[in-house]
Amino acid sequence: MTGKTMARKAAIIGGGVIGGGWAARFLLNGWNVSVFDPDPQAERKIGEVLANARAALPALSDIPMSAEGKLSFAQTITEAVEGADYIQESVSERLDLKHRVFAQIQQSAELGTPIGSSTSGFKPSELQEGAANPSVIFVAHPFNPVYLLPLAEVVPSAKSDAKVIENAKTILREIGMFPLHVRKEIDAHIADRFLEAVWREALWLVKDGVATTEEIDEAIRMGFGLRWGQMGLFEIYRVAGGEAGMKHFMAQFGPCLTWPWTKLMDVPEFNDELVDLIAGQSDAQSGHHTIRELERIRDSNLIGFLRALKDRNWGAGKVLREHDDRRRAAFHAEGHGSEAAPLRLAQMQVLPGWIDYNGHMTESRYLFAASETSDAFLRLIGADMDYVAGGHSYYTAETHIMHLDEAKLGDRLVGTLQVLSADEKRLHVFMRIERDGAPVATIEQMLLHVDMAAGKTCPAAQSVLDRLLPIAKAHASLPKPEAAGRHVGQRK
Amino acid sequence: MTGKTMARKAAIIGGGVIGGGWAARFLLNGWNVSVFDPDPQAERKIGEVLANARAALPALSDIPMSAEGKLSFAQTITEAVEGADYIQESVSERLDLKHRVFAQIQQSAELGTPIGSSTSGFKPSELQEGAANPSVIFVAHPFNPVYLLPLAEVVPSAKSDAKVIENAKTILREIGMFPLHVRKEIDAHIADRFLEAVWREALWLVKDGVATTEEIDEAIRMGFGLRWGQMGLFEIYRVAGGEAGMKHFMAQFGPCLTWPWTKLMDVPEFNDELVDLIAGQSDAQSGHHTIRELERIRDSNLIGFLRALKDRNWGAGKVLREHDDRRRAAFHAEGHGSEAAPLRLAQMQVLPGWIDYNGHMTESRYLFAASETSDAFLRLIGADMDYVAGGHSYYTAETHIMHLDEAKLGDRLVGTLQVLSADEKRLHVFMRIERDGAPVATIEQMLLHVDMAAGKTCPAAQSVLDRLLPIAKAHASLPKPEAAGRHVGQRK
Repeated sequence: MTGKTMARKAAIIGGGVIGGGWAARFLLNGWNVSVFDPDPQAERKIGEVLANARAALPALSDIPMSAEGKLSFAQTITEAVEGADYIQESVSERLDLKHRVFAQIQQSAELGTPIGSSTSGFKPSELQEGAANPSVIFVAHPFNPVYLLPLAEVVPSAKSDAKVIENAKTILREIGMFPLHVRKEIDAHIADRFLEAVWREALWLVKDGVATTEEIDEAIRMGFGLRWGQMGLFEIYRVAGGEAGMKHFMAQFGPCLTWPWTKLMDVPEFNDELVDLIAGQSDAQSGHHTIRELERIRDSNLIGFLRALKDRNWGAGKVLREHDDRRRAAFHAEGHGSEAAPLRLAQMQVLPGWIDYNGHMTESRYLFAASETSDAFLRLIGADMDYVAGGHSYYTAETHIMHLDEAKLGDRLVGTLQVLSADEKRLHVFMRIERDGAPVATIEQMLLHVDMAAGKTCPAAQSVLDRLLPIAKAHASLPKPEAAGRHVGQRK
Repeated sequence: MTGKTMARKAAIIGGGVIGGGWAARFLLNGWNVSVFDPDPQAERKIGEVLANARAALPALSDIPMSAEGKLSFAQTITEAVEGADYIQESVSERLDLKHRVFAQIQQSAELGTPIGSSTSGFKPSELQEGAANPSVIFVAHPFNPVYLLPLAEVVPSAKSDAKVIENAKTILREIGMFPLHVRKEIDAHIADRFLEAVWREALWLVKDGVATTEEIDEAIRMGFGLRWGQMGLFEIYRVAGGEAGMKHFMAQFGPCLTWPWTKLMDVPEFNDELVDLIAGQSDAQSGHHTIRELERIRDSNLIGFLRALKDRNWGAGKVLREHDDRRRAAFHAEGHGSEAAPLRLAQMQVLPGWIDYNGHMTESRYLFAASETSDAFLRLIGADMDYVAGGHSYYTAETHIMHLDEAKLGDRLVGTLQVLSADEKRLHVFMRIERDGAPVATIEQMLLHVDMAAGKTCPAAQSVLDRLLPIAKAHASLPKPEAAGRHVGQRK
């Protein structure tokens, strides 16, 4: 969605950490959001989640973010859901409460509007009991932090309307999520069953004094946790089985099933003693960080993981790329006019992921900004992807960068391009990456036109030269930039 | 360890995927390794693991790798353990076999040499039964891929010699691992109890038709898997509990313990039908990749995660930094900085996300590769994150890039750096991004040492100059690169 399209509306019922995460995801993807939560602290709480999300989500994107939607706080459920295109319930985990909320929603929501529930444990058929229109109520179970983790378990029941479910999945994809369609309803869906299994085992280990909370966390994050963030259980074991594959792995570890490797045959007594033991160990482990600090650390780590996967087009990184593709398509290219002045070709904003540990835009992003600019120029003269598919392209032979100032988080940058000289084979350009009209860096480049199959230079197509040479001629009257023709370390 | 110090020797008994991973870790950290495995395929298998490790482990390091140790294949256990400083057993998971192996080892190994076992399930007291010297036998349980994942669960028994255990933990740290001391022995130690719990639950879900292997893997890697790679179970839940903390979280989720959220109260029957069902689903999910491909994808993803954590000095990334610190100290102690040769500082592989629509490495990644190289150099001379935190840093003023060839997907690149000149404030460097020893690009840069608060140049700290100037002096005798001092478009 962009500002030019009519923004859609999401209603968020329940504004805790989960509801706030949903609100942030919709807002930052251009949806208007109306939140209903009777808690007088709701506005502050949502504001905190939103601040975290605003710092984190843009770091995953490689194109400028959509304009944020409008956030409002409704006094009633009726007000919240009025005109909503999607409704998400995230109230406390009590079935009677959820039933009352659904009843109120369905008094005023439009008939076909999807109503997703963030429930960790209830089955959709339980949520639907007694509803006026059960067919639009389903489970859409997200994972904290909702604004960063892509997973949403989408669980319909036999009563669900298949079209509503497909519509909901499309909407979830549009806000960058990965809807996992769970085909058979079950208590706690899929992921939380694993979490519960590990949680029960962990409680035993702490209770029996085998390990502290810190030791258990190290046992997870130094080993299999890293594996599971990029492949899951089965794919990792498939690899471990080696060339002999999955059957070999299973034959090797099948017998363990009968060994006393977990205590999950029963459940530890949940009493104050156990709570105190765990809370105390957790304080010793993590108490030197506030919860806010831990949230930021967690988000920064997740951004790092997600960017790594995005570079590799794998797992959650694939979801991010697909999201970018959708948003890029929705973004309409501005009209590029050619004047007797440097061409303004690319606009971008400095994202959190572009910052180095000095707090400045990392060096390679200046060249990235220049590439965005020169790519736009090549498209302008017709040396676009179709041209490349035909076997010809411009390659960069040489680059000189002057760093004049430091771009910082959130800065809006404009890339301009001036043609210094051009002939059939050579294209010599000078780019300025500007902030508020002043360059933060200049980039001078020599591009050569090549026949890709032959691997050598050749004249550009006449259609390209017909666009390029008039611009070069117009730019010949511009003053030569001071930095052009410099070598590194040359005195000014 | 480096080539100049007397290399120590590790004996690896059992050369499968796990034994091979141990061998690789020791070798790449400069240890000599002797492997014993009667399997005629052992040499080939170890070779394959070692090839993976050689491609992966250097990508985690910011200082030049140590010279590799010497790998040999022993005909007998006696030959393998002769003169060994550390012995690791990774034979099949059969207690009688392990007992026979320990008996043979102890006939010839030196008395105090630690003998670690890679066992997934046996307790150290079980391993020690009937041994000539039980006090040196303990569990050192690693995680596949052993050459990348830092975790080793170190489990002693009451009979263990505390000094041997401490020595073993020191050695494990020296090869870059994180020894987690498990204080109370228990079947399957800690991590595998969680893996077993999840495995049992997953088998049920597949058997009951709730989810396929692929859906289960997505449920893990799109959500909590990403959380667990950087914080563990308890720290993540502490954050989820919000300001109210761990007790609040437990109060909220305590009741679930009595709900039917896992099936782990019993165990699915392990029969051919279940094996076929899972192997078939796994083929459908992952069969379009060979195991070798999956290994490389897994390793590349893990490198991305580990680098992200290293940038943030968190979790497994902290272990990597500490390992670099140890190796950096050795590097300087042995005078490597004063050799008259460009420093090999960064190794990387061209990832799918680095490719443009020509199929070539995108332009800005050449500068990224140079940044990795110059960052590694700055860390080498002590201008690291702590130095920056103290208010000083090197900024890049000017950059000149020559594109000499095109790097393609999967290419392995090495960044080398030659100091052209250096004084108190200025650092003029020339970097080559090489593939197979030939440069694909060269990058010349002028860096200025700055007082960040004042926003102007100032002399570097003496400790930095003490490391930088000897390198500059040594490099002064190197020929000036042809491309140094060029301006864009200059004739050759």
